Amino acid sequence: MNINAERLWQRLMDMAKIGATEKGGNTRLALSPEDSQGRAQLIEWGKSIGLVHRYDAIGNLFLCREGRRADLPPIMMGSHLDTQPKGGRFDGIYGVLSGLEVLQSLHDAGQYTEHPIELAVWCNEEGARFTPAMLGSAVFCGKMPLEQALAIQDKQGKSVGEALVAERQVGDTPLQRPLSAYLELHIEQGPVLEAANIPIGVVTGGQGIFWLDAVTTGKAAHAGTTPMAMRRDSMVATAKMIAQLEQKIREAFPDGLITFGELQIPNSSRNTIPARVYWTIDLRHPNASLLQQMRKLTEDVLSVIATQQGVEISVSEHWYSPPTPFDVRLVQCVREAAEKANLANQPIISGAGHDAIHLATYCPTTMIFIPCEGGLSHNEAENITPDHAAQGCEVLYYTLLNADQIKE
Amino acid sequence: MNINAERLWQRLMDMAKIGATEKGGNTRLALSPEDSQGRAQLIEWGKSIGLVHRYDAIGNLFLCREGRRADLPPIMMGSHLDTQPKGGRFDGIYGVLSGLEVLQSLHDAGQYTEHPIELAVWCNEEGARFTPAMLGSAVFCGKMPLEQALAIQDKQGKSVGEALVAERQVGDTPLQRPLSAYLELHIEQGPVLEAANIPIGVVTGGQGIFWLDAVTTGKAAHAGTTPMAMRRDSMVATAKMIAQLEQKIREAFPDGLITFGELQIPNSSRNTIPARVYWTIDLRHPNASLLQQMRKLTEDVLSVIATQQGVEISVSEHWYSPPTPFDVRLVQCVREAAEKANLANQPIISGAGHDAIHLATYCPTTMIFIPCEGGLSHNEAENITPDHAAQGCEVLYYTLLNADQIKE
Repeated sequence: MNINAERLWQRLMDMAKIGATEKGGNTRLALSPEDSQGRAQLIEWGKSIGLVHRYDAIGNLFLCREGRRADLPPIMMGSHLDTQPKGGRFDGIYGVLSGLEVLQSLHDAGQYTEHPIELAVWCNEEGARFTPAMLGSAVFCGKMPLEQALAIQDKQGKSVGEALVAERQVGDTPLQRPLSAYLELHIEQGPVLEAANIPIGVVTGGQGIFWLDAVTTGKAAHAGTTPMAMRRDSMVATAKMIAQLEQKIREAFPDGLITFGELQIPNSSRNTIPARVYWTIDLRHPNASLLQQMRKLTEDVLSVIATQQGVEISVSEHWYSPPTPFDVRLVQCVREAAEKANLANQPIISGAGHDAIHLATYCPTTMIFIPCEGGLSHNEAENITPDHAAQGCEVLYYTLLNADQIKE
Repeated sequence: MNINAERLWQRLMDMAKIGATEKGGNTRLALSPEDSQGRAQLIEWGKSIGLVHRYDAIGNLFLCREGRRADLPPIMMGSHLDTQPKGGRFDGIYGVLSGLEVLQSLHDAGQYTEHPIELAVWCNEEGARFTPAMLGSAVFCGKMPLEQALAIQDKQGKSVGEALVAERQVGDTPLQRPLSAYLELHIEQGPVLEAANIPIGVVTGGQGIFWLDAVTTGKAAHAGTTPMAMRRDSMVATAKMIAQLEQKIREAFPDGLITFGELQIPNSSRNTIPARVYWTIDLRHPNASLLQQMRKLTEDVLSVIATQQGVEISVSEHWYSPPTPFDVRLVQCVREAAEKANLANQPIISGAGHDAIHLATYCPTTMIFIPCEGGLSHNEAENITPDHAAQGCEVLYYTLLNADQIKE
């Protein structure tokens, strides 16, 4: 192996001591003292191999290593060090410390790349303290104005701008500066790789998402005095919609996902036929056209059942996020890196949000996934094996070198 | 007609002035000054035809007329004068004022029955101020100890006992005294008679009720990272259970009712597959054996789907109320009364709770229903037609005379 597996694992365990929770997780909320302490530890490790650190105006931290050619924009590796409240030890942290390990391995080997290399620690990726998530990368990529981001407040009324100053995590490295590529290594946060017993996920992009709000309207009536045939039962109608829709989506869209996460009956009572059901539909697909077709099928199925059941259905769009295909050449770099490392790999879609999803619309971008235990994340019990950690880091190492060879 | 339709309607309208609401309904909460005022009006009307009034220890009010034979226990007509907050003008009131009209018609005709006749105004039927509903009839019939009922408090901490004294609605007429029969005329509070265009419902009994609590347990997971085939989605499983169960119950039990009134997903989020769904099932059937079979089918269907969907289901009994068949001879008296009055009629089940359900376990009992507009009740818009009001009262008149002829 080119990277040092033991050093990587030791640093993961050392970082996990900062903001450690009782049940083996981590709490390092964005721009908290614990978050700054984690960053300081990283900076110290970086200094030992000559990495220079810089901040931008939204609190993104960059550790920089020169390349042979100062005229090329840097290749950036990165992820985040902030966590959910009682979050895990690996979500984000694994990508950052693997990037450091790649840089230290190059340093130890006395090897220089063509491009300058940077390691990014994005600010407030989790969105647990300041909403929305992925705030630092959004501002860096020009997706959110800086002033708007600085004004966002946490629940105590403290703004991002105030927290940045208080924690001294702010600097003048330009936003939206040119990058040659962005690479992010991450735990899968899903069960696919573990179930398939595959150590490397070659991430081909992020899914598109429709968040739909549905309202089924029937007629409230007494459970004891209203014959079945005379009912307009919004709950039974909604149940039929969910049951049939889930089945039809599974049949028609093998790569699609559909989730009904929220359902509410206002003023409900066990002996009243529900007048109205408010519920949500989460539709996901990596292909924009097929995602639109999923939405069309959804509306068609709901409309047919509403007519059959004598109820009304309204569906409105709450949010849309288009699919984000990753850079084809970089995806190929990852595949070749896994093969060079002699590691089984499979294409996979990024289901969760990542800074890489913002970066992908800004510069050539891709991601690498490793398995995590039971697909569990955002949880103190989040876990990975040292072997998987080392293997993912080795693939990141080769991917960086492959990307370094891409000629514009 | 034997009864005076105009006088009945006028008294309904006069009573509706006491506690009248802006939108044409009534608010006369149990043992409130408005409730007492309504009772005082009734007593005054009763006095004009020589009716004596008495109270028992739980605030039930009785207006009494002698029969030819003082040795026979009285036949009682009755219902209630209290209303829901912003309730209707007819629920309960119609039965009481029709009873008065029957007594006045007998008085006007100089006609005496064999049995003494009483008109009962049951205390706190609605249960809107003091829980449970049908409190006065429960104590009268010995279903709830007097002391327990007197201690029940409203939301302001005022007890039934205190309210009875404050409103002077208490007396020493014995509880659980012998009755020859109990007859209650009521609006249907459902849509059946109106839809069938039938003026008289011959009520054959009250339904049995199972209230079941169901919990579907799957596994929480990320909506974006968990493939459909790897999910244990408690919401989709619950939807399939509701959809299939409703269909199977309808097919197998034409006289059964099934309602899913409440459904909750704790800690729900639109991008999290629900771990757990809490929901309720309300099963009703007039036949005790078939009701048990409905419950068995329910548990079987849920169990099969839970296995198919890889989730767990638990079903527990929250409450059971057995079916209450009414007295066969009295039901026949109603049928013959409707025919004598030349009014179309059909058998019907009482779906809602009534004082008659308590009385039915205590003495021979039955009910008569008339249609109400849109099946609407517990609502300011509750409505009936003067024609239906008169027809129901006429049937009560004949029913009383028929019941008076029954020999023990």
